[in-house]
Amino acid sequence: MTAKNAITPRERDFSAWYNDVIMQAELADYSPVRGCMVIRPRGFGIWELMQQALDGMFKETGHRNAYFPLLIPEGFLAKEADHVEGFAPETAVVTRGGGKELEEPLVIRPTSETIIYAMFGKWIQSYRDLPMLINQWANVVRWEMRTRLFLRTTEFLWQEGHTAHATDAEAEEEARLIVRLYRRFMEEWMAMPVLTGVKTDSEKFAGALRTYALEALMQDQRALQAGTSHHLGQNFAQAFDVRFQTADGGLDHVWSTSWGVSTRLVGGLIMTHGDDRGLVTPPRLAVTQVVVVPIWRSDEERTAVLAAADTTAGRLRRVDCRVEVDTREGMKPGAKYYEWEARGVPLRLEIGPRDLAADQVMMARRTGGKTRVALSDLETAIPSALEELQATLLAAARERQEAHTHRGVTRDDFVSVMEGPGGFVFGGFCGSEACEQAVKEATRATIRVLPDEEFRSETTPTSCLWCGEASAAEAVWARAY
Amino acid sequence: MTAKNAITPRERDFSAWYNDVIMQAELADYSPVRGCMVIRPRGFGIWELMQQALDGMFKETGHRNAYFPLLIPEGFLAKEADHVEGFAPETAVVTRGGGKELEEPLVIRPTSETIIYAMFGKWIQSYRDLPMLINQWANVVRWEMRTRLFLRTTEFLWQEGHTAHATDAEAEEEARLIVRLYRRFMEEWMAMPVLTGVKTDSEKFAGALRTYALEALMQDQRALQAGTSHHLGQNFAQAFDVRFQTADGGLDHVWSTSWGVSTRLVGGLIMTHGDDRGLVTPPRLAVTQVVVVPIWRSDEERTAVLAAADTTAGRLRRVDCRVEVDTREGMKPGAKYYEWEARGVPLRLEIGPRDLAADQVMMARRTGGKTRVALSDLETAIPSALEELQATLLAAARERQEAHTHRGVTRDDFVSVMEGPGGFVFGGFCGSEACEQAVKEATRATIRVLPDEEFRSETTPTSCLWCGEASAAEAVWARAY
Repeated sequence: MTAKNAITPRERDFSAWYNDVIMQAELADYSPVRGCMVIRPRGFGIWELMQQALDGMFKETGHRNAYFPLLIPEGFLAKEADHVEGFAPETAVVTRGGGKELEEPLVIRPTSETIIYAMFGKWIQSYRDLPMLINQWANVVRWEMRTRLFLRTTEFLWQEGHTAHATDAEAEEEARLIVRLYRRFMEEWMAMPVLTGVKTDSEKFAGALRTYALEALMQDQRALQAGTSHHLGQNFAQAFDVRFQTADGGLDHVWSTSWGVSTRLVGGLIMTHGDDRGLVTPPRLAVTQVVVVPIWRSDEERTAVLAAADTTAGRLRRVDCRVEVDTREGMKPGAKYYEWEARGVPLRLEIGPRDLAADQVMMARRTGGKTRVALSDLETAIPSALEELQATLLAAARERQEAHTHRGVTRDDFVSVMEGPGGFVFGGFCGSEACEQAVKEATRATIRVLPDEEFRSETTPTSCLWCGEASAAEAVWARAY
Repeated sequence: MTAKNAITPRERDFSAWYNDVIMQAELADYSPVRGCMVIRPRGFGIWELMQQALDGMFKETGHRNAYFPLLIPEGFLAKEADHVEGFAPETAVVTRGGGKELEEPLVIRPTSETIIYAMFGKWIQSYRDLPMLINQWANVVRWEMRTRLFLRTTEFLWQEGHTAHATDAEAEEEARLIVRLYRRFMEEWMAMPVLTGVKTDSEKFAGALRTYALEALMQDQRALQAGTSHHLGQNFAQAFDVRFQTADGGLDHVWSTSWGVSTRLVGGLIMTHGDDRGLVTPPRLAVTQVVVVPIWRSDEERTAVLAAADTTAGRLRRVDCRVEVDTREGMKPGAKYYEWEARGVPLRLEIGPRDLAADQVMMARRTGGKTRVALSDLETAIPSALEELQATLLAAARERQEAHTHRGVTRDDFVSVMEGPGGFVFGGFCGSEACEQAVKEATRATIRVLPDEEFRSETTPTSCLWCGEASAAEAVWARAY
């Protein structure tokens, strides 16, 4: 942490910059509990807006929310072999309850497949009960040795979707539908462009048949896995014996999916848009979209500008803008500007006596640039400036991502990209886990995804970028969070 | 649990009735985890509507949401002497994390005062930082030996408000404001009338100066504590050394409050309104307010009534009704009615060919009574029927509560009320904890509250209902959940 009112420049130390932005904007704080963070109101407000948008999208596509227990009998995890291998080392275990040693220890959920499949087994009897489309907003715990605010904490908040289907094809369609839904959210709300594709076997979810992922590129050119959607096949259905009577009278295990995004997305938002003055929030996820700063010297001016500020705020609220008026006394306008910039508020409206006389306000964009707005135009000009800003942020992030996407490069180029500026490197991949591991050891880069068709290079690579053997699929490498 | 499609009558066994209603309406289910329940979509939907209403009221009164860690170092609990005594025996304790024994065990929060005051100490420096008005929606764990769906489970969902103020008076006003807010929610949304007042010392929150509570009377005439609001004085501020610079340059500990309601309210809703056919949901908290059941015999009729059902649903959705159309094939209308009644849907609209010919639908109220509604009147008649039903439920619950409220009774009357029909008994209380305990042992009734002025009897009791000594305050006794 640096001193109050100082943000380390990104160029100097991106990681320090990230923490400074969070502290200055009061998004989160360290807690006295190892590896756990506190999400402060300004940070939690962003998560609430994310939840609202996503929850609406889940419900529109037929999913319903439910709630399953936090505590899972340790033995449940072991029922799916890959799952226990992946998660057991990371668990927090309750061994005492109500003053007594427990006969069977309980694990705090690292994810809820096991407890949910135990219930699906009770609820699903016939094909008529399918598809079962459930979502849960919850906290989960995964013991982490190295933590980072929002990005990697022992406890985090997320949503986890769990669905059961009658056929492989339906589960596949669900897993892909969610990738499209997440992508729409990340691009249209977060203004964060993403690559989509499938994970290699070594990077897939413990217990999944296939893991689809969405990957974004941060400003330090490291990748962030922003969301995942798993086709679980019949793995959990078999482990928990979730069978249903098929339409033609047979008996089959259900096919299932699970998918999630977490408070990590708040970290992604910060690292996609923030600048050296602090947070930059895309308007659709800004708790305060517009701050009105009244400026006065005399008491007479004060009365007039405060009234005008309130009127302005009221008019904007009626057209669904989220507005705050900064009426604090004894603080210079410049100091207020500085603070609201650090907090990432998209638009600032300054109203002084001269603006009042001219029937106007001065509008300052968080991304730079001031414009006079006639008071009569408020209801159209401000919402459209917010929309424009939303689009500008997406375009800028997309441009940056493209500028740091490397295709058709040699192995040496690849190494220097990873040692230098970083970014996404597209290239052929032989498909061998050993080769994947060799790249990781040499460059610290991992395969983020085998990209979906629309992201693939025009010319399909024929040989592996690393070993030169025949390419089995195109891959995207990056150093990642 | 009883057989599918059978609800035990309330008269025969209220407790079995309660569980049957929950199972039939698919509100919740038992889980394989000791003492923990699963909240199914139809139950969780009610909780979501409760959350929305309460969250809006909290925000309107200046509170903001945040999130604090699930895990609390065991030593934190011990910092406030009463608090640890009250909660330590109920805790679930994590002793292993990431495969290792922890140096200091972590307690799963039974409530979050301790972790929150540790943070308030970092954030609060001066009177300018006050009041600090925080709310958290979270899960908590309290080890329970005897559990009941929604009413008492080891893990439950709740909101916990935590506020810090510069003066005793401001904290007192906050604690009382929340009681008024909760009461408005319980009466206007849940249609559940409540008594408000202060708890005796033996029933107050562990660590509080004073606990205010809201108490409702269930249909078995047992009381349910529906919400509490605590004036914590400076107890936690002293334990965690949360001090601030006062306006005149001094240094003082903050005054604070905490308050909460939980998923127990869903249980309260069930036991206030349900009947022998199942759940009855107040329209404002009904996930589905109106179910449209199309009735047909021939294919031709089917096409016409399904179209009319969809049109009806669309028109009602545009006036903000939450509507579902039951288009299931191969199920008789009567069977559908039965099911939707068990699920507590307030209004059912039946549309058959004859209704279509007469440009009408048949409207059936969950509480009884059918009325013809002209199709042209849908947008006015249905919302007003929902409002009427909401008011009817509150009036009926109020009438029942009044019918089971006993004032000016003798000690013998009191004993027979508690042995017989139950209810609220108002009477004088000497103020002695020993007397309170004696009543409890003899009758299993406890003092629910020392009621607020508006609920007190016209004639102030002069002697203790139990021991006959001089009365220190009027009290309300009941057997309680």
